[in-house]
Formats: sequence, structure tokens, C-alpha cells
Amino acid sequence: MPPVDVPDLVERARRGEHRAVARLISLVENGGSELPAVTAALAPHTGHAHVVGLTGPPGVGKSTSTSVLVTALRAQGRRVGVLAVDPSSPFSGGALLGDRVRMGQHATDDGVFIRSMATRGRLGGLARATPQALRVLDAAGCDVVLVETVGVGQSEVEVVALADTTVVLLAPGMGDGVQAAKAGILEVADVFVVNKADRDGAAQTARDLKHMMSLGDAGSWTPPVVSTVAARGEGVEELVAALDAHRAHLDASGERERRRIARAESEIEAIALERVRARLADVRGATGLVSLAKRVVAGELDPYAAAEELARGAG
Amino acid sequence: MPPVDVPDLVERARRGEHRAVARLISLVENGGSELPAVTAALAPHTGHAHVVGLTGPPGVGKSTSTSVLVTALRAQGRRVGVLAVDPSSPFSGGALLGDRVRMGQHATDDGVFIRSMATRGRLGGLARATPQALRVLDAAGCDVVLVETVGVGQSEVEVVALADTTVVLLAPGMGDGVQAAKAGILEVADVFVVNKADRDGAAQTARDLKHMMSLGDAGSWTPPVVSTVAARGEGVEELVAALDAHRAHLDASGERERRRIARAESEIEAIALERVRARLADVRGATGLVSLAKRVVAGELDPYAAAEELARGAG
Repeated sequence: MPPVDVPDLVERARRGEHRAVARLISLVENGGSELPAVTAALAPHTGHAHVVGLTGPPGVGKSTSTSVLVTALRAQGRRVGVLAVDPSSPFSGGALLGDRVRMGQHATDDGVFIRSMATRGRLGGLARATPQALRVLDAAGCDVVLVETVGVGQSEVEVVALADTTVVLLAPGMGDGVQAAKAGILEVADVFVVNKADRDGAAQTARDLKHMMSLGDAGSWTPPVVSTVAARGEGVEELVAALDAHRAHLDASGERERRRIARAESEIEAIALERVRARLADVRGATGLVSLAKRVVAGELDPYAAAEELARGAG
Repeated sequence: MPPVDVPDLVERARRGEHRAVARLISLVENGGSELPAVTAALAPHTGHAHVVGLTGPPGVGKSTSTSVLVTALRAQGRRVGVLAVDPSSPFSGGALLGDRVRMGQHATDDGVFIRSMATRGRLGGLARATPQALRVLDAAGCDVVLVETVGVGQSEVEVVALADTTVVLLAPGMGDGVQAAKAGILEVADVFVVNKADRDGAAQTARDLKHMMSLGDAGSWTPPVVSTVAARGEGVEELVAALDAHRAHLDASGERERRRIARAESEIEAIALERVRARLADVRGATGLVSLAKRVVAGELDPYAAAEELARGAG
């Protein structure tokens, strides 16, 4: 492969060239030697995009909601990025593409950038490259980037950690208010969507959520509850309005800046720890760790003492 | 507080004294200065328990299934531990206790150890202390330890990482086979349970799962699909038999040893990284990281260069 002209790629991505955007995301996804140069070149051009995470149980309509949101945002002339994070399955051998098909209508729209990122079977959710991919879409001038996860939820927490605004989707019949509370998702929602609002129980689900919101110490922002029928595009204007209202709240309250700084802290720390991890691996070698682990399993050594030995080796 | 006599506590826990077990779990949960001494004293007494993780979408009946499993295992004279990992909610101010009430019937049984661990609102799932709490229950002579999560799934991946045997619970009407595949949980299941098997569509759900299992490259173990009505105790004997069969398979194939070594590796590495993280924090101070993060947010610095600075400071 010829060497990559990173500044040129970034320049072309900033002009909205789809191929350059795709190439940059591949570079950050592959995590090769160009990565530091790519992130350095992107850095001055980020901070514009409103990152919206969509999360919720499987079957709730995340993909459909994402697609109709794209349509609504495009109708307003906004540039939109979509990052769909798919767990890869040993049964399909790659990202599950069914939902991407529904995105087909946007494939030829110059103002839409769609990218599936497979987590490649790595449990733990979002590809490590996702924050960098967001930077690429941000630098490419996206006004809004939608991050959608596929799955029961191993990626939910990471979406929340990345997003300015977290949308939690629920549907009637998928569990009452107590279930939602058990799900631990009430506290992460900035906006609730009750999708499939034409079904029995939808009004009750929305009322339950509103009631629970009224009980909580919600601070200066009370998450609104928007009812949608995404498959027919109903309620999507209201959802866009709720997203914009939250963005305005984030900006006005200084919360967006605080969240972005907290995210940057985590990102920096994660990269630094990754480097240390690599150094630990170098010093001890895989064999060293395995032999420590075997002694722990045999009950000869406890994990703290083993960690001490590992860290000493890398010190 | 008087100093803790760790060897005495561990000795009493090994004799099955509930108070000693509870005290040890509190010690590892609090992560105080006794932690290394506690894990060192536990180390020679672990490796016996069969750790079974129960996971699945909210509303599928995880708590009820756990409770009836306890009953069935106790009827066979086995000693049972239960770790219920609850996300704490800002609305309840602590772990959600509703499900624990159903465990009440076991509260006076000397052969059952039940512990709720709240993740204290920390996104990221299982308390860091969970592996250590498992060691306590293991050393206390539990034959089986059931680890149950509450939630959409931020803890699922961590349960899988801890368990010898992962049980994935589904229920009819919670999504068809494609939804299960999207959920990315097919690949982590050692045993499937279709709970609420008296409902419409249960047989179809079970058939779908069996069909998908037959398509996959399942290796030497094909996850069985057990139908249960946990609320009435139906199918629970079959579930116990499936758990035992998987345990026997793990032992016979050497897979249990491999999984335990891999788990010990992760645990050692996590503790070592935690120490490094603490060192990074010491050296740079919170202010140092925040100022780097602010420069990243301002686009003056990219995260890789910031991580470089952070790591240099701690070098």
C-alpha cells in the first residue's frame, strides 16, 4: 500500500468527500501506525457535531427510528452521520446487515454518511475506534451524528459515554415502569421515545415514564417523553425538536462543555492505559501472565500478589 | 473499628458461618486495606464452586428462575450462593430490592448465601468487587454460585466473563430468532432457557433457537434449549441437569481450566492496570488530566498526544 497522505485525506473529508471519510474511518478502525497522525489532523476540526446515541432493548425499533430521523434531519438541510455498531455473530461471520438495507434510501444522498462498525465479536461493546470515527464524521461537517447500537445492551453504556444526548427507546408491552427502572436506563436518558405508539399500552407506558421522571431528582433537565410510530414516520418531528431542545439546554447550561471534557478525559486515560497495557505485555510476555494466572487458579498465589509481580516486571 | 482478624474470618467462613461470609464480602466490596490479605487467605480454598451466570432481557424472569434454581439445588443438598448484581438507581437511592423479597424463603436456610451487590450507579456493570465476592462464596464451600444481573445488559458481558456456565434466558414474544441474533447473545450462551413456556409462541422460540444452534459452528458443545415456567417451578429439574451436563463437559474437555486461567489473567491484568491508573492519577493529579482534556476539546491537542503527555508524567 502507498503511504497515506493524511492531511490531504482530512482536507477532502472536510469538503464532504465520501471516499475520504470512509478511508479515514477505516484507518482509525484498523488502528495502524497512521492513527496518531489522523487524530492530530482531525483535532482542530472537531466539536461541531451533535452526537445523539440511540439505545433500548432489541425489537424496539432503533434502526427504523434512526432511518426516519435521518430523513427528517435531511429535510431540514442538515448533514447527518450514522454510526451503527453491530456485534458480529459467529453465525453471520460479520456485521448483521439486515437493518442497513433499510438505510438504502440514504445511500445516494451526499449529505448522509453511514458507517457500520462491527465489534468483531469482542465482548465489551463498541469498537474501541468509535470515538475516533465520531471525530472523523465531526470533522466532515456532520451537524448531527446518530450512534445506534444493535444488541441487548453490552454497548449501551459506551454509547451513553460518547453521546451529547442519549435517547432511550421503549415500546409498549416490553415491560412496565418497574422493568424500565430495573433496566437501569432511566438515569441515562436525556430523551425518552415510546415507539410503536399505535399499540395497546403505549399511552400507559408514556404516562409511567412521565410519572417516574416527576419523582426523580432530574436537575435542570427533565427528560421529555416523545411518542412515535417510527415505521410510519409519526412523531419524528417532535423527536427532532426534543433533540434540538436538549442540545440547546446543553449549550446554555455549560453541560455540553462539561460532558465533552469528561469524555476527553476518559479517552486520554484509556489511550494511556492501553499503552501501559502494551508495555506490560511486552515486558512479561504472554507466557509470564499465563504462568501467574495458572498459579492463581491453583490457589498458590492470590490475584493481588500476581498483579504486584506483573506490575513490578513492567516498572 | 478494631483490626480485622482475616485468617479467623476466612476459617469461620469456610465452616459456613453466614456472618463471616457477609463480613468478608463487605471487606472486598469496600476495597479497603485488608483486601490483599483477604484474597491471599482465600486463594488456597477456591476452585470448587460451579459459577453459573444468568442473563437475558428485563422481564424474562431471571430473579424467579434464580429462586427456583436455589430451591432445586437445595433439595439435592447442595450449598448455593447467589450474587445479584443490581444497578442502583437515583430514584431508589440503592439496589432495587423487590426481587430480593422473593428470595425471602431462602433467608433462613443455612445452606444458601444471598448477596446483592449494587453497582452504585457506576455505569459499566458489575461491581469491580464481584470476582472477589465469588472467591468468598467459593471458599465458603458453595457448590454452585448463581450470578444474576438486573438490567438491560450493561453487566451481561461481565457476567459471561465470570461464569463457568452462562445461561441466556429468553421468553416468547420478546423477539424472534433474528432479534436474538441481533442481541449478540447467541454466542455467549452455554445453556438457553425459554421461560414462560406456557405462553403463545414458546415452542416456536425454542425451535428457532435449536435451529440456529444447528447452523452454528458450535464446537464440541451444542447449547441445549430448556423450556421452563419458572413461576411454577416447571422445567427446573431439566435446567439443573443441563447445568450439570455443561459442568461435566467443561471438566472433561479441559475447558473449565482454560476458562479459569483466562479469567485469572484478566483479573490480574485489571488489578495491575488499576494500580497504574492510580499512579497516573497521583503523578498528574486530577487537574493535570482535566487541563489536557480541555485542550483536546478545544482542538489544540489530539487525544494520542495528550495520552503521551499523561504517560510521560507517570513514567
